Amino acid sequence: MSFVKAHGTGNDFVLLPDLDDRLAVDEALVRALCDRHLGVGGDGVIRLGDGGPEADVFMDYRNADGSIAEMCGNGVRCVAKYVADRGIVPGDVVRVGTRGGMKAVEIVERHADGTAAQVRVDMGAPRLTGEVALDLSPLVLAGTTDGSTTAEQRLVTFTTVSMGNPHAVVVVGDVATAPVERWGAHVAAHEAFPEGTNVEFISVPDPTRVIGRIFERGVGETMASGTGASAMATAAHALGLAGPVVTVSLPGGTLAVERTADTLLVTGPAVEVAAGTLDDRWLAAAAAQGVPA
Amino acid sequence: MSFVKAHGTGNDFVLLPDLDDRLAVDEALVRALCDRHLGVGGDGVIRLGDGGPEADVFMDYRNADGSIAEMCGNGVRCVAKYVADRGIVPGDVVRVGTRGGMKAVEIVERHADGTAAQVRVDMGAPRLTGEVALDLSPLVLAGTTDGSTTAEQRLVTFTTVSMGNPHAVVVVGDVATAPVERWGAHVAAHEAFPEGTNVEFISVPDPTRVIGRIFERGVGETMASGTGASAMATAAHALGLAGPVVTVSLPGGTLAVERTADTLLVTGPAVEVAAGTLDDRWLAAAAAQGVPA
Repeated sequence: MSFVKAHGTGNDFVLLPDLDDRLAVDEALVRALCDRHLGVGGDGVIRLGDGGPEADVFMDYRNADGSIAEMCGNGVRCVAKYVADRGIVPGDVVRVGTRGGMKAVEIVERHADGTAAQVRVDMGAPRLTGEVALDLSPLVLAGTTDGSTTAEQRLVTFTTVSMGNPHAVVVVGDVATAPVERWGAHVAAHEAFPEGTNVEFISVPDPTRVIGRIFERGVGETMASGTGASAMATAAHALGLAGPVVTVSLPGGTLAVERTADTLLVTGPAVEVAAGTLDDRWLAAAAAQGVPA
Repeated sequence: MSFVKAHGTGNDFVLLPDLDDRLAVDEALVRALCDRHLGVGGDGVIRLGDGGPEADVFMDYRNADGSIAEMCGNGVRCVAKYVADRGIVPGDVVRVGTRGGMKAVEIVERHADGTAAQVRVDMGAPRLTGEVALDLSPLVLAGTTDGSTTAEQRLVTFTTVSMGNPHAVVVVGDVATAPVERWGAHVAAHEAFPEGTNVEFISVPDPTRVIGRIFERGVGETMASGTGASAMATAAHALGLAGPVVTVSLPGGTLAVERTADTLLVTGPAVEVAAGTLDDRWLAAAAAQGVPA
């Protein structure tokens, strides 16, 4: 079984090319592949399946825990790069089928050798879903006494945004020192969000620039998220802090987010690290017992 | 540049076959390769170089931060498997040159297809260097109030062992709930150990069995360590808790440690996960700028 290791702004994937739909990729294999010590390592696995009559390729995405996800903004850029770089599709637009619908993904910048460098994805329309003020003082009681009690004891307001998945965005003084794991874990599981939420911490130094960090529901802090960046830009705009076009700097790299009349366009890098073949014995063991030790 | 991703009990490596010594592997490339999101991901890089007249292969090992290490018990098993599986050396013994001297590494169990399954390494003679009793009450003052204060306030005795590198081993009631990160970070940097120390937490349910976790100096908790397992077995034996032959169960898997008259033999698995080629553009970027985003 061949694979490609790729990433978009540090959100990394094991791609399994399978354009004729021959591979059986189950939860156990995904977990084994994504294990960062016993497997290849990745935030998720993307099987590149047959796109059918409507799409050039199907993005069969699974998270590292084996669960299915509808879409992944960083992953879909890697899929488009794979397809474009290998000449499977001529031109700059790759039609990627996803469980969240068909995405027209555009190569907007190429390296000197013609391979894709920057890729643009239509993330769909953001939906502002309101503001939620949370009393975070329980964190102080259980937490440390590092002098941050005053700030944490008052109500903290989150701007909530749906990008298909839920986000709660909070503006902080200094993103670098924001308590992403502690607040994130608390807010993601707060009763105000019955289905959980992703949590974003941002600052907006000027109207064209957002700096952010992300706590992903069920994962923890991650290096980048396409829907997270979209939610950050949307919240910053709704709060009057940012204009319609911003760069969003995340720990894993920078995405450009552009607000149009009816959607959000997110542009960012797609990088291939390596390509190879999975060891047959490892693969057999992964299928039989999950992560092989 | 071709590579193999391999691991021994969860201690994982990027192997770079280079038997004719053509590759230039510097610190920047090692850091980029080991980056778990932007690179291939690994605890270290092992360039498999020309062994010279005395050895079949040279293990040029670097830690994930780019620093050079003399030896790595888990890595040397992967090196021997690579060499044996590809028929570079006939028979069961691979002479691996390392910065810590020549190691005769033996394939002691094979899979049905003849590839190496279990590999034995002579780790050299352990040296008991004494006992150190530390007052860990500072941890209580800075730590949580989870009811563990009583146990932590008294002096805690560590058995120190040199396997070339330093180890401090402590017997605990329950390895699973041992405060590995908190105590480990404190002890590793304690003034009692001017050059730092690795810290091992063990329990010995019967004289043939050690259960342990490892805090690696400068790294944090790791899944396995060959010298760590050796130190655990040595301390358990010195304390009268274990006999000369034990299995050591670590988070990443199990190693067998056998005490002979003048050395320690450690036997464990070596697993290949995948083989492939690094992307040329990624490689150029890694050389130019470190970890490419």
